[in-house]
Amino acid sequence: FREIGYQKTTVADIARTLKMSPANVYRFFDSKKAINEAVLERLIGEVEALISEIADRPGLDPTERFVAAIETLHRDCTRRCEAFPRLHEMIEAAMAESWDVCRHHVARITAGIERIIRDGVARGVFEAADPAEAAACVHAAIARYTHPVLVGKSPLQPAPSVEAMTAFLLRSLAPR
Amino acid sequence: FREIGYQKTTVADIARTLKMSPANVYRFFDSKKAINEAVLERLIGEVEALISEIADRPGLDPTERFVAAIETLHRDCTRRCEAFPRLHEMIEAAMAESWDVCRHHVARITAGIERIIRDGVARGVFEAADPAEAAACVHAAIARYTHPVLVGKSPLQPAPSVEAMTAFLLRSLAPR
Repeated sequence: FREIGYQKTTVADIARTLKMSPANVYRFFDSKKAINEAVLERLIGEVEALISEIADRPGLDPTERFVAAIETLHRDCTRRCEAFPRLHEMIEAAMAESWDVCRHHVARITAGIERIIRDGVARGVFEAADPAEAAACVHAAIARYTHPVLVGKSPLQPAPSVEAMTAFLLRSLAPR
Repeated sequence: FREIGYQKTTVADIARTLKMSPANVYRFFDSKKAINEAVLERLIGEVEALISEIADRPGLDPTERFVAAIETLHRDCTRRCEAFPRLHEMIEAAMAESWDVCRHHVARITAGIERIIRDGVARGVFEAADPAEAAACVHAAIARYTHPVLVGKSPLQPAPSVEAMTAFLLRSLAPR
């Protein structure tokens, strides 16, 4: 997928690289789609672990964790898209044919953001009537900075810095 | 472009439909790219006129104008993508080869949002240290709901309703 792109890769190519027969690959994965899902689950697991670690990191207050989570999502996505320019092909394939993988990933990252917001509300530094909805809004608002399909291809539109966006979103969470 | 898509349409197809020679088309447009730009300038002009009208509408307070502008951008984009499922092909071509057209459009819509925010700040119903930056953040945050490439293709990710997102962004502009 990295060398010739997701679309052009066949299960026969994968078997050849692994020096095994296509039949043997099919013993473990019943389609190219299933291989894509397994690879994405691994990449996704790494990002989720990063965000989960930040959401629960002791010694950082909720605002610092909020900033660190967005910064980390943005940096991780930018780094991966630079190292692997064809990553968006795998993601686009998953968006077209493995919607559950995408949906679960979005839900788990949003859950990490929600945990930070809930902790901020509990400590009185954030205010949010519905922390789950606030987290979903934050996650949708930062797609421009953290979604491989938007970061990896030509930019969607000129946009403010990720720091300016983070500050704008934090204002929405400030108590009044 | 509507019938067979932007990529497959040739200048010869356009000339045939217009019952003129390709040479005659080339008298007015020096490339398919130039035709795409002219069509997009027209569509874009319509959206910009809608937003400009809302930004200056008497009888609506700044919050109502903010809500109406986002709702209008979202409804207009959804309606166009439904009526014209291949619209995103034209926009993707413009993003790849007519970046100035995209940049100017984003700047003009953002300017409409900025006008609403500035008026709100002047009346004391909004607070924003940098209204231009706040408008840019709002515009980037709503891309999921108002960008034809994101609205017209399979959804980027599950997202909250446009009303929830609008309320979240309004909170960021509230005075404290």
